Amino acid sequence: MKDFFQVVRYQQAWHELMNVRPPQVLQTLGLYEAGGRIAAADVGSREDLPSFDRSTVDGYALRAGDIYGCSESSPGLLENVGEVKMGQETSLTLHKGQCCWIPTGGMLPAGADAVIMMEYTEKLDEKTVLTHRPAAPFENVMQAGEDVRAGQIIISAGQVIRPADIGLMASSGVKSLQVFKPYRVGIISTGDEIVPPDQELAPGEIRDVNSYALYAAVDECGAIPTAYPLVKDQFAAIQQTVAAGLAANDILLLSGGSSVGVLDVTLDVLMSFADARMLFHGLAVKPGKPTLAVGIKDKLVIGLPGHPVSALTIFHILVAPLLRPRNEIHDCEGHLSINVFSQAGRDDFIPAAIEEQKDQKLIHPLLGKSGLMSILARAQGFIHIPYEKQGIKAGEKIKIRMF
Amino acid sequence: MKDFFQVVRYQQAWHELMNVRPPQVLQTLGLYEAGGRIAAADVGSREDLPSFDRSTVDGYALRAGDIYGCSESSPGLLENVGEVKMGQETSLTLHKGQCCWIPTGGMLPAGADAVIMMEYTEKLDEKTVLTHRPAAPFENVMQAGEDVRAGQIIISAGQVIRPADIGLMASSGVKSLQVFKPYRVGIISTGDEIVPPDQELAPGEIRDVNSYALYAAVDECGAIPTAYPLVKDQFAAIQQTVAAGLAANDILLLSGGSSVGVLDVTLDVLMSFADARMLFHGLAVKPGKPTLAVGIKDKLVIGLPGHPVSALTIFHILVAPLLRPRNEIHDCEGHLSINVFSQAGRDDFIPAAIEEQKDQKLIHPLLGKSGLMSILARAQGFIHIPYEKQGIKAGEKIKIRMF
Repeated sequence: MKDFFQVVRYQQAWHELMNVRPPQVLQTLGLYEAGGRIAAADVGSREDLPSFDRSTVDGYALRAGDIYGCSESSPGLLENVGEVKMGQETSLTLHKGQCCWIPTGGMLPAGADAVIMMEYTEKLDEKTVLTHRPAAPFENVMQAGEDVRAGQIIISAGQVIRPADIGLMASSGVKSLQVFKPYRVGIISTGDEIVPPDQELAPGEIRDVNSYALYAAVDECGAIPTAYPLVKDQFAAIQQTVAAGLAANDILLLSGGSSVGVLDVTLDVLMSFADARMLFHGLAVKPGKPTLAVGIKDKLVIGLPGHPVSALTIFHILVAPLLRPRNEIHDCEGHLSINVFSQAGRDDFIPAAIEEQKDQKLIHPLLGKSGLMSILARAQGFIHIPYEKQGIKAGEKIKIRMF
Repeated sequence: MKDFFQVVRYQQAWHELMNVRPPQVLQTLGLYEAGGRIAAADVGSREDLPSFDRSTVDGYALRAGDIYGCSESSPGLLENVGEVKMGQETSLTLHKGQCCWIPTGGMLPAGADAVIMMEYTEKLDEKTVLTHRPAAPFENVMQAGEDVRAGQIIISAGQVIRPADIGLMASSGVKSLQVFKPYRVGIISTGDEIVPPDQELAPGEIRDVNSYALYAAVDECGAIPTAYPLVKDQFAAIQQTVAAGLAANDILLLSGGSSVGVLDVTLDVLMSFADARMLFHGLAVKPGKPTLAVGIKDKLVIGLPGHPVSALTIFHILVAPLLRPRNEIHDCEGHLSINVFSQAGRDDFIPAAIEEQKDQKLIHPLLGKSGLMSILARAQGFIHIPYEKQGIKAGEKIKIRMF
């Protein structure tokens, strides 16, 4: 039996994986296809936004100075010289004492510097409008370039494209952008005792869980999962499936029996490929010690623990952030409900559920017996107890790393 | 010009929409297809999970009572009677003073009630094992049914299926489940001044933003968006496109010019269909007053404000939760950075960004001029100022409704 001879800390494992992450291929997508994808380059606005001074209300465009100090009892009096049509350039120019009707979104005519809402006006006849309150310069006007200036960066490389980003690009005349192609991720489960879920269990057998759970997890990250048929714990069988998986994917996720001997076979298979570099073999993480990573040419193979809860935990903390940038702003804060103990010298990830209380969030670590899938299914995320700490006290304010 | 004659509050609008939400069609999916979908019915486990007593470590199965009180200086002495093979039923029965090798996941033999980790044992010869510490009953054993009992509900109707749920179903022999078919959502933008983003703007014109932003927003909710070509503000043209949209979708999102006259045309068109029931016409919500909803047979049409920021805001607060259940546990809490004023008698939704500080989250309302798409793109969610309140004070603890 080999030792875990390259046991590494969580942070180091993460850096190793980031260093050898497979190259990200670029593709150009139109706005209808780009939602949820990751921008590969900064995007600048093509023009000022808005491109002209616009009214933000229905009302009368005017020169603010003309109705300075007017009121209900002493209304302003303006000459109505026409109207601005929605979606059309206006040739009107307002001179001193003049106004014109303008709809929401309409283009401010030359000479005007404010709009007064219809509610504060009274139309005496076609040519005469009273105003019952004054207007500040640029009141109810969105000035050209006020939202975005031409050339301003509106999308940053590496960000996930959300609906408002799509809206911003559409507004500013951007028709397409460069994004990263999603990684193709192959999923291979090995184990003599593993059978597909649609098969009745003989005593001693357990069902294949990892193929299905990891498939859903990869898909949730926006990457493209492919699950391979179950493989027995034999060198040749694993080698053949890994070769097929490497040819068709950027990243392979292997998960095998969690005992040490089986992990050795997996490692031997991976190291038998040309250009294989072992990145680590064993993680100082609970759960997830029997995790390994090997770079093979420009592909990455991660051997996850066979135990489904450990496999999904390591997926969440090490694989998911490779597939999709993590936005830590979404991690919730709350107070820990009970003392949690750990062992210094490893990172612990403990499933946890959030309870909303009147004026705080209570975070319950779901301890039970480790490895219960039902516990992971009830959790909203993980508590992380860092390498140096031996535990966290009840009542302490902590973050929960949300799924 | 018609009044907003059915202005309703946000809560009432939500109830109206929920009451007439289009029927949800069921479909049965296998585990590879079900990730991210919404369960239509409870799912019970088909069997005990695990289905047999399993070891959670590599070591020796034994009878805890046999090594009670043993220690490094006074080891226990056991007769090794064989080994349990991974994935196979064992015919071994342990009698007093006996043990056998068992791998992680292996089936506990009859008579055994605990497993001692290999690290705490010493194999003297093929037949003799020393134990250097005692074992508690069921130590390192996951008992049959400990994770899930046969018949226990593992998935609840209405929940979103996450990877751990898929894992739980796979473990317990569930091969498929009933989910809701995603709604088909048609998106129709109207307005004489609106032009597609790939067209150069003439003065006074603005680009079509809603088709693209709403498409991405519908897609993000897991529903199936279809964007229709731009429609001019003419009764016949709108009617024709709405008829086509109703035939092919469950829900239609119309967004038109934000001025009152245009909204009237939209409403007249919708009410011209047989079985049309107006649900509301005008919302006491900022932004989003010019929102309307009409039920037509078993379909739902929501008229969103023409202004893209308002349209996307109303989408997030009223449409998205129809398409996909909202998990409020993901809403972050923090302290408001500045005073925010509102007007009693309406619900305000203000875009906000979160700043992580050393020991708290600071929530910055992004006020600026309302209606800047760049502000919405920088926000992580909304602050909600309820109908009754006139504002929130700086420093108050509040929730941000995350996108």
